Amino acid sequence: MFADVIYEKINECGNPTVLGLDPRIEYVPDSIKEKTKNDAAAILEFNMNLIDALGDIIHIVKFQSAYYELLGPAGAITLQNSIAYAKEAGMIVILDAKRNDIGSTAQAYADAYLSDTHYSADALTVNGYLGTDGIKPFIDICKENGKGIFILVKTSNPSSGELQDLKLESGITVYEKMAELVNNWGADFVGKNGYSSVGAVVGATYPKELGKLRQMMPKAMFLIPGYGVQGGGADDVKNGFDANGYGAIVNSSRGLMCAWKSDKFSGKYTHEDFCEAARSEAILMKSSLNAAI
Amino acid sequence: MFADVIYEKINECGNPTVLGLDPRIEYVPDSIKEKTKNDAAAILEFNMNLIDALGDIIHIVKFQSAYYELLGPAGAITLQNSIAYAKEAGMIVILDAKRNDIGSTAQAYADAYLSDTHYSADALTVNGYLGTDGIKPFIDICKENGKGIFILVKTSNPSSGELQDLKLESGITVYEKMAELVNNWGADFVGKNGYSSVGAVVGATYPKELGKLRQMMPKAMFLIPGYGVQGGGADDVKNGFDANGYGAIVNSSRGLMCAWKSDKFSGKYTHEDFCEAARSEAILMKSSLNAAI
Repeated sequence: MFADVIYEKINECGNPTVLGLDPRIEYVPDSIKEKTKNDAAAILEFNMNLIDALGDIIHIVKFQSAYYELLGPAGAITLQNSIAYAKEAGMIVILDAKRNDIGSTAQAYADAYLSDTHYSADALTVNGYLGTDGIKPFIDICKENGKGIFILVKTSNPSSGELQDLKLESGITVYEKMAELVNNWGADFVGKNGYSSVGAVVGATYPKELGKLRQMMPKAMFLIPGYGVQGGGADDVKNGFDANGYGAIVNSSRGLMCAWKSDKFSGKYTHEDFCEAARSEAILMKSSLNAAI
Repeated sequence: MFADVIYEKINECGNPTVLGLDPRIEYVPDSIKEKTKNDAAAILEFNMNLIDALGDIIHIVKFQSAYYELLGPAGAITLQNSIAYAKEAGMIVILDAKRNDIGSTAQAYADAYLSDTHYSADALTVNGYLGTDGIKPFIDICKENGKGIFILVKTSNPSSGELQDLKLESGITVYEKMAELVNNWGADFVGKNGYSSVGAVVGATYPKELGKLRQMMPKAMFLIPGYGVQGGGADDVKNGFDANGYGAIVNSSRGLMCAWKSDKFSGKYTHEDFCEAARSEAILMKSSLNAAI
């Protein structure tokens, strides 16, 4: 089951980092662009290079669907090939697509991404605004195919509180209600390590909420975006982990993809060293996270 | 601006119906499947046939993205070609994809679907759970390119109330709060006919809420799904219209796509007559809607 496989993958490399591959063409170094024939090919090449360079340090990758959709049908092929390449390299693949719809359509999304027909991700992010019958088709497919979902609870963006932080008449906030729903949806889908294949997305940029949600959802694996460029650091995300240092995975996208440009390395790297720079950043991030949790 | 263009399109044909093209391959008649080489080609052919058959009665089409994503990269091409074909036929194209993400990623989705690069829909459905900075990039692109969005407020599915109907401490429900946000987001984007290019999705299956929301969001064009197979009828949707019979568009998908199988026509049509059957249903739906509003 997904919850156990991801638990073991983290154990294997001692690293809860997720390599976020959200490549805008502007992030791709000229050294790649020069030898590829179009944006979709350049991004595939960039992804493959980063997977090769980081695969021994990081065992989980997250593709942000939007950046592939932005490339039109060619982007769909790049996504498909990137997923296949990452799986071939032994990585767990999360597709960040935040899908949501009524039952019959949710079923189509689940079939599209969590069956082995075309894209075959190991897990998908989804939005629970529609309630149980918009989520259940995803869970059913996860059960059939050993896959997982991460449901948006408290997102990392500045305005996430406008709706999510509002207090309900019952005394809890909207995002806490979503956390309750996530608990219910994942309750009968818990693996031998105590975590469910129904996880939650909780932003690194809200450390206080992260801690509270860790208590509220003891069985949900957290996918934590917002580390690095969005402002969250290792101290901010530590509240997302349980007492044993498990239960959360932390995504870095631009921090890894664009490490060669980072002030942190004060001009040490050029665009040709993007893989080496990403390795340096991955090693730093792994040790920062492990020191904090 | 989108709000005015769609207003005029409805006026032109005196019909607020939206042709929903959410084609699972099971909906495609054998007569099409026999002459096409794969599912993606069959669905494109099916769509083109329905657009040709209905284009004089219905001037708005909505593609449900999930059913194209289900076909993998070939589905992306079918979606692109279907959108282009519908626009060539003079129809307004709504892409129902319920996208949502943080600012930079919302921008990528907006560029993907509401710019003229690849898919070039006239409007997109979006989910507002992330708040203003997840919505603003869509609105900015809409302003630049004369496009529109429809934000999920109260969805048509049975469980929509689990989160959406909860009462906030302030006394209004979560979906009413979303309606307030929609009002704010669309306030400075109102066309000469009094409607904004920021619209709302409100399900046909909740007629009472539809009426209340019509009062609460006087400037939002409503996209109403759930007519027909999901259970809503003309009397259920009438509350979504203003006193002049404007302000809403009503989607029918399976009702039109699969009209030839409907009991309503008691065996009059075979799979070869799917276009004729869809025309009969479209004419019935148009007159039912116009009688009710």
